[in-house]
Amino acid sequence: MALPRSIRDLSERFSSLPGVGPKLSNRIALYLSISNRKLASRLEDSLKDVTAKIRLCDNCFNVTDNESLCEICDDGQRDKSIILVVETPLELYSIEETGEYKGVYHVLHGIISPVNGIGPDEIRIRELLSRLKSDSDIKEIIFGLNPNLEGDSTSLYITNEIKDLDLDIKTTRLAKGIPTGSSIEYMSSQTLSDSLRRRDGVE
Amino acid sequence: MALPRSIRDLSERFSSLPGVGPKLSNRIALYLSISNRKLASRLEDSLKDVTAKIRLCDNCFNVTDNESLCEICDDGQRDKSIILVVETPLELYSIEETGEYKGVYHVLHGIISPVNGIGPDEIRIRELLSRLKSDSDIKEIIFGLNPNLEGDSTSLYITNEIKDLDLDIKTTRLAKGIPTGSSIEYMSSQTLSDSLRRRDGVE
Repeated sequence: MALPRSIRDLSERFSSLPGVGPKLSNRIALYLSISNRKLASRLEDSLKDVTAKIRLCDNCFNVTDNESLCEICDDGQRDKSIILVVETPLELYSIEETGEYKGVYHVLHGIISPVNGIGPDEIRIRELLSRLKSDSDIKEIIFGLNPNLEGDSTSLYITNEIKDLDLDIKTTRLAKGIPTGSSIEYMSSQTLSDSLRRRDGVE
Repeated sequence: MALPRSIRDLSERFSSLPGVGPKLSNRIALYLSISNRKLASRLEDSLKDVTAKIRLCDNCFNVTDNESLCEICDDGQRDKSIILVVETPLELYSIEETGEYKGVYHVLHGIISPVNGIGPDEIRIRELLSRLKSDSDIKEIIFGLNPNLEGDSTSLYITNEIKDLDLDIKTTRLAKGIPTGSSIEYMSSQTLSDSLRRRDGVE
């Protein structure tokens, strides 16, 4: 005897979500079917809501419920001469939480990854280059991509494309090193050698 | 700047699910809003479906999409003289997967847990005792509750209640011991002393 079909269907759909395995998805499906129906109906409403309201910003491709530009691109106070490039809106909102960054963003919606069959044309690189060509005020591109092989090659690829445009634009990336509050003992030797090579003056 | 409200709402609802933390729920909400809208609408349909179809069996309280009795209680081939008691339908389906058990079940929908304010009346114990009183064919109750303090006290509590009924019913529980395929080295000393005390003859 197996779980009723409607619960199995729900569980299967949950298991297609990032980070949800088959055991957890069974637990969730059962929880929603019998223990918390109120949450099930709220989830239903929310899913309807995001589908109706959420779109991507015409300029930076961040998620937004605005008509054309997202709140950041639409904000007169933000410095439009610096663009921070991220893989997904999640990194964008992590950086926003610092309250430190006053420039604007560009969301690639992916990373160049030959292993996963994702080339430069599958992500929003062309759109970034168009922004640079059409706006001569842009002075710096900061890469905020995860510090791994794919993030580094994507930054390098885009940097080379920008060089070919022959514009006066500086490209930088977030510092690599030992995270604040962590233990040197637990760092990988790659992290330690990066932080040795990129060592700072003591201020 | 924060995520758009509809995504934050969806994320918050996901984070109310068992096993889903705030980072994962943000990732899921964003994934459904922009990367996989087809899955969002399928989830919506499935949630509607379980709410409409799923109910609890009138006899054993397992989940079912049948009218009154679940498929197991309704199955003439199952041995109605043995009842295996579980905490949730998840354990029921784990046991069904073995293909070993031919009796029927009773789902308590919880476990006695004074710490969490759950007493005997909060779970389906009364309904189990009614089954025993009304059906003199029942000969054995097997407890399939998790082998911890709460599971053990719940088994003991119900066993005492059954004794008070003065019926000829045997109460047993699933064997405690070393899981097949595991390493003795990694077992807790409680598990090892249980498996020493309950040692079997070599067959």
